[in-house]
Amino acid sequence: MAAAGEDTVVGVDPGIARTGYGVVRRRAGAKLDLLECGVIRVRAGGGLAERLREIFEGIGDVLARHESDSLALEAAFFGRNARTALVLGHARGAIMLAAALRGLPVHEYSPAEVKSAVVGAGRATKEQVQYMIQNLLRLKSPPQPSDAADGVAVAICHCFNHLAFASESQRGLSPAAPR
Amino acid sequence: MAAAGEDTVVGVDPGIARTGYGVVRRRAGAKLDLLECGVIRVRAGGGLAERLREIFEGIGDVLARHESDSLALEAAFFGRNARTALVLGHARGAIMLAAALRGLPVHEYSPAEVKSAVVGAGRATKEQVQYMIQNLLRLKSPPQPSDAADGVAVAICHCFNHLAFASESQRGLSPAAPR
Repeated sequence: MAAAGEDTVVGVDPGIARTGYGVVRRRAGAKLDLLECGVIRVRAGGGLAERLREIFEGIGDVLARHESDSLALEAAFFGRNARTALVLGHARGAIMLAAALRGLPVHEYSPAEVKSAVVGAGRATKEQVQYMIQNLLRLKSPPQPSDAADGVAVAICHCFNHLAFASESQRGLSPAAPR
Repeated sequence: MAAAGEDTVVGVDPGIARTGYGVVRRRAGAKLDLLECGVIRVRAGGGLAERLREIFEGIGDVLARHESDSLALEAAFFGRNARTALVLGHARGAIMLAAALRGLPVHEYSPAEVKSAVVGAGRATKEQVQYMIQNLLRLKSPPQPSDAADGVAVAICHCFNHLAFASESQRGLSPAAPR
């Protein structure tokens, strides 16, 4: 756990091959700091179970390294492809478990909710999101690569949406709004 | 691990609310014993992350209780509903992780492969599958409930498909090895 009045959030953009994440600390007074961001890349050769283990352990390492308080996840955007959704579900399950087994709450936000929280508009462009991330976290440039930036954006979204209203009930799985 | 020449397989029919499983031991000589079967029921009230934790721990308990050698999973049948596939993927990810974190191999079989292995026909009816399970395992009645029976069928499928080939190739390499 962070110091009193502080919260450390790990934001995650899940994928079976590349999972982006960003660790953001919200200080008393609502100032945000970026503690770390990056991408968990999974070796292509392994089977699905082995990939899930790598994602699970990678996110687990991040959660442990920063004594995180919660995990926020970008809700899946699923189109018509059930097979893609199925595979993505595996990765999301591994990420959620990494938090749940540590007793950490898991929150989900749709892409539109993330954009709305970070930029103020649910249909913001990628460039607008990156610009606001850079400003909010006082960075010299936007986080790279873009998967990591997406994780950071989810963490910021959670800081703004949830921590400000700590009594708000946990969000469930919800389909993403159409783009 | 089971005794030399024996293999213990946990077969699983995954679901986010109900996950059926069956534990089958294949003795030397290819005789099969049913060690246990049942259903992991997840409380409806919890969030998705909490449900995954219950499935993960439930399957983990089964794997540990029988010192299992491998886990076999019914491959997902996905129709047109991406949302259903996404949620199912979470449950499957939790089950695969329970095996992968114990270093156990994970195998997948399609419903047609399971039916073909158990009955000899990929389009067998549920009743035919139940009848063959009962006969192969020398049970007085088919396993109940049907989710548990589906888990048992996957375990039998793996015993026939995979372990038979493994022991044949082992026998081929060392013909003098006792069975």
